[in-house]
Amino acid sequence: MQVLPPALEKLIDALGNLPGVGPRTAERYAYYLLKSDGHKSAELSDALSQLHKNISYCKKTFALVEEGMELSDLYTDPARNKQIVAVVAEPFDIIALEKTHNFSGTYHVLGGLISPIDGIGPEQLHIEELVARIDEDKVEEIILATNASVEGESTALYIRKQIGDRNVKVSRLARGLPIGLDLEYADQITLSRALEGRQLLS
Amino acid sequence: MQVLPPALEKLIDALGNLPGVGPRTAERYAYYLLKSDGHKSAELSDALSQLHKNISYCKKTFALVEEGMELSDLYTDPARNKQIVAVVAEPFDIIALEKTHNFSGTYHVLGGLISPIDGIGPEQLHIEELVARIDEDKVEEIILATNASVEGESTALYIRKQIGDRNVKVSRLARGLPIGLDLEYADQITLSRALEGRQLLS
Repeated sequence: MQVLPPALEKLIDALGNLPGVGPRTAERYAYYLLKSDGHKSAELSDALSQLHKNISYCKKTFALVEEGMELSDLYTDPARNKQIVAVVAEPFDIIALEKTHNFSGTYHVLGGLISPIDGIGPEQLHIEELVARIDEDKVEEIILATNASVEGESTALYIRKQIGDRNVKVSRLARGLPIGLDLEYADQITLSRALEGRQLLS
Repeated sequence: MQVLPPALEKLIDALGNLPGVGPRTAERYAYYLLKSDGHKSAELSDALSQLHKNISYCKKTFALVEEGMELSDLYTDPARNKQIVAVVAEPFDIIALEKTHNFSGTYHVLGGLISPIDGIGPEQLHIEELVARIDEDKVEEIILATNASVEGESTALYIRKQIGDRNVKVSRLARGLPIGLDLEYADQITLSRALEGRQLLS
């Protein structure tokens, strides 16, 4: 017996593909879209159909850009210091760093992290292009802004090795206590990193 | 400065309209769709564009049906007892009841609950049509399966009044302890309802 019309079943199935969305949440989204006027679902439908057509990658930094653009604004803007490059795993990591309003260098998106278990080796990431940028743009500092995870750390170490003895500073984001965390709730590894990285009060 | 391409911003905005989806979750959904091949977003886009065109309401029960169908299968199926009608607020409540595999009557969807604070009065709900069905289908029992909320209760009472002295049993779903709940964690109102509705062990 057909409890729901096929068009609705189809939408619930498609919404259920989104990460972290189970059948109940998908039902909730679908019913919300059905109850609101057709405008909301038409808008979403349009945005989805345009997605792959209108998005491309910056040839230099591999950040997301509008289709037809060669280079990202974050690279071409003259206010941006091309001699400092923050290396991130995914394009969305750029948003997080931009929100700090504390970084005026450029970015380099790796497109993932080295993870043998998922079949991702260094040759699938944009590491070669990063090394080429060091020479082309006369980069002075590389900030390895990868996650504080096993994959993030090993990718950082691999990149360090590839850079070799080129005359460039290589740093990585500090590991330590996140702001607002009580010492007693900090995990062991975070706390040892915070101890190792302790800084003199001057 | 444009951190994200406009097509992606548009999708994030549209996804952020879904209930309970904030900007971070919308970003996660959008990036997932961008990373997976175009097939997934095309599927979702299609399903959305078909939604309003292909869904209609059953003329009798107001359940959701395929466009072009007059009556829901849940009503026309001869195995369904038309003399027993479960009254629910929303079409999705039917799914919950169907999953029990314990009800073989028909349904009647009100399309909401009486809620003066949201500007929903009884005239906006399909209550008149329910009363008409009692006479047309010679209904023997009406099961008021509305939520155990203030709106659910007052809608149930209003319907009871509209039915008047027609010769029909009117019941509502039992209120009591949900299965698996420890007595000590039950709230006061649930517990008083469970006391009031206590049943003899025979």
